[in-house]
Amino acid sequence: MGNVDRIKNVAARVAKYHAQGDKIVVVVSAMSGVTDGLIKLAKDIMPLPSEREMDVLLATGEQQTIALTAIALHRLGIQAVSLTGAQAGIVTDGVHTKAKIHNITPKKTHEFLASGHVVIVAGFQGQTPEGQITTLGRGGSDLTAIALAAALKADLCQIYTDVDGVYTADPRIVTNATKLAEISYDEMLELASLGAKVMQSRSVEFAKKFGVIFEVRSSLNDNPGTIVKEETKNMEGVVVRGVSLDKNQAKVTVVKVPDKPGVAARIFKALGDATVNVDMIVQNISHGTGTPQTDISFTVDKVDLLKAQNVINSLKEELGFHDVITAEKIGKLSIVGVGMKSHTGVAGRLFETLAREGVNIDMISTSEIKISVVIDISKGETAMKAVHATFVN
Amino acid sequence: MGNVDRIKNVAARVAKYHAQGDKIVVVVSAMSGVTDGLIKLAKDIMPLPSEREMDVLLATGEQQTIALTAIALHRLGIQAVSLTGAQAGIVTDGVHTKAKIHNITPKKTHEFLASGHVVIVAGFQGQTPEGQITTLGRGGSDLTAIALAAALKADLCQIYTDVDGVYTADPRIVTNATKLAEISYDEMLELASLGAKVMQSRSVEFAKKFGVIFEVRSSLNDNPGTIVKEETKNMEGVVVRGVSLDKNQAKVTVVKVPDKPGVAARIFKALGDATVNVDMIVQNISHGTGTPQTDISFTVDKVDLLKAQNVINSLKEELGFHDVITAEKIGKLSIVGVGMKSHTGVAGRLFETLAREGVNIDMISTSEIKISVVIDISKGETAMKAVHATFVN
Repeated sequence: MGNVDRIKNVAARVAKYHAQGDKIVVVVSAMSGVTDGLIKLAKDIMPLPSEREMDVLLATGEQQTIALTAIALHRLGIQAVSLTGAQAGIVTDGVHTKAKIHNITPKKTHEFLASGHVVIVAGFQGQTPEGQITTLGRGGSDLTAIALAAALKADLCQIYTDVDGVYTADPRIVTNATKLAEISYDEMLELASLGAKVMQSRSVEFAKKFGVIFEVRSSLNDNPGTIVKEETKNMEGVVVRGVSLDKNQAKVTVVKVPDKPGVAARIFKALGDATVNVDMIVQNISHGTGTPQTDISFTVDKVDLLKAQNVINSLKEELGFHDVITAEKIGKLSIVGVGMKSHTGVAGRLFETLAREGVNIDMISTSEIKISVVIDISKGETAMKAVHATFVN
Repeated sequence: MGNVDRIKNVAARVAKYHAQGDKIVVVVSAMSGVTDGLIKLAKDIMPLPSEREMDVLLATGEQQTIALTAIALHRLGIQAVSLTGAQAGIVTDGVHTKAKIHNITPKKTHEFLASGHVVIVAGFQGQTPEGQITTLGRGGSDLTAIALAAALKADLCQIYTDVDGVYTADPRIVTNATKLAEISYDEMLELASLGAKVMQSRSVEFAKKFGVIFEVRSSLNDNPGTIVKEETKNMEGVVVRGVSLDKNQAKVTVVKVPDKPGVAARIFKALGDATVNVDMIVQNISHGTGTPQTDISFTVDKVDLLKAQNVINSLKEELGFHDVITAEKIGKLSIVGVGMKSHTGVAGRLFETLAREGVNIDMISTSEIKISVVIDISKGETAMKAVHATFVN
């Protein structure tokens, strides 16, 4: 489907809600290929272009879409008007390419809504109080939508994605996975951080902070999606909301580290300084005679594995550990549910299910509403199906 | 040459001036093909898209170029920063797609210049006092450059075009035409309105009004161009600065119009209402017995000929004229020079030259610094060469 047809489809969808008398603000992204094309132009000039200028450049992508979407609505006889991020009063900090929204002054949006317009706002962008153009980084358009919904006190915010909603598990793996009618912010956050790539965590965090109820739904059909909202009493009846499998992590084990205060701090400070994102961390009790020694294991995104190895190796002399072992063929299986808070024995049932399937557990990590285990990737899908059958259906 | 190479060329040129210690503001246009591509997208959605939204859409073209030009300067180790029209403080009226500049508040430009930056400003665009994005219409980037030069009190404004400068005649026709070192605003204005398509009249008018000295030069080489400035005493030594031939006009003659008060007003009011741009107008003395009758001839842009005919025909019953005759195969030959003010006999020498070449004169129109004649287009180039030889060299 070409860009013009996509824009016409968005307009047709908006027209339907407009006909019901809703006041509508639409947040749009750049057209397919536009952002990548602009990045290529910039990198053809200079491999590491200025982030300030990249923001000026990339902000044009969404600006094009807002104008074309407004025109597509005019074609359907609907009053519509476009606003850039700056015009919509989206004020951010000055961290170019990944700015944070400071506040929104939706004065113009209110005025245009009051005069009967559909307002089309450019996602992913804002401006600093000094008038510099900024962009919000990955998932920025979702964030714009949720932040605007908060500022406008919207009844509902719909996030259109390429998936139907949030499922109990990836339906490509677990064929009887079902779409959730609703999910709590915290569950959604855990799932977001677990590789269920529906939305970026910070958009969900923003929604949670400001109590924005939003619906994740598909841009390709009219099926109802999944409503994401504050946890309710009856949500706790369900122990496990969803099961996820993250295949994009790798494991690093630092073998026989002298077990003395400050060692873990040294390791993870160094990784943080190198912008390596560490997920799970496990440290067992000391063993051996003489100076006590321990093994420290952690997981990182696969793309960061080499960087993590280099960081650890650079500390070898200082810390005096024996070896660094890495494993890439791992999977992180997680179960998530606010019901875990009030149900006991969940971990036991999980481990039992895995044992029955002959799946060895490598690492374990828990939170109040989540249990994650690292297992061999070759057993990942078998394990996921079994766990889904145990806890969901 | 691709867009990236063009942008790198601009940066290299700026770098040269920068190395001389000049403070530089660069005004840029959209990359080749970008504006046309965006217009096509909009028209694919709706044949007559909203002018407000077209401005939002098309302003992205220049915004892309400013960012990429700044990046190209960074690559050369030069501090540079981009500003959109709005950021550069270019305030316009609200007439979308052809806005007029009201004023410029070059606060940010001054600040960035003071801190040693080259400032890259998006041409062709501005914003209304209410913050709506506007564009300035054809030739808008030249206008931005001249208006900014005025606001910043620049020493010099260079306009880069696809021609070397202003010539005494079109060198493709008159092989010994020479490039002018300088020309007055008024002469440039006459030439602009005569089909020498170097610049739009309104940019020249703006420069004249604010005394901005500018140079028209080529973006393809380093040759000095033509300086356009206020008339000086020694400019008057030259009778004819240039000769032009406009082949894009058509002639309309309204035959045997009853010669009574208000008839001409009626005709030209109707043409104006239909946005037909009328250039030369000639009305001869009345002839005939009974009610006096006259012929009124005028020229219009060829593209407007049909519209003009329709307008005149719609008045036939009301005005009672006999017929409308049109001629498309005409050329308008003009000589321009501030020296005409102080030299006599110029018209006589022009007519004599044309007579010698066997060129019949169809219409004559004069201003203080210009004489134009309408002739048969087949004699156009012969006439131009002869007139150039008589008055220039």
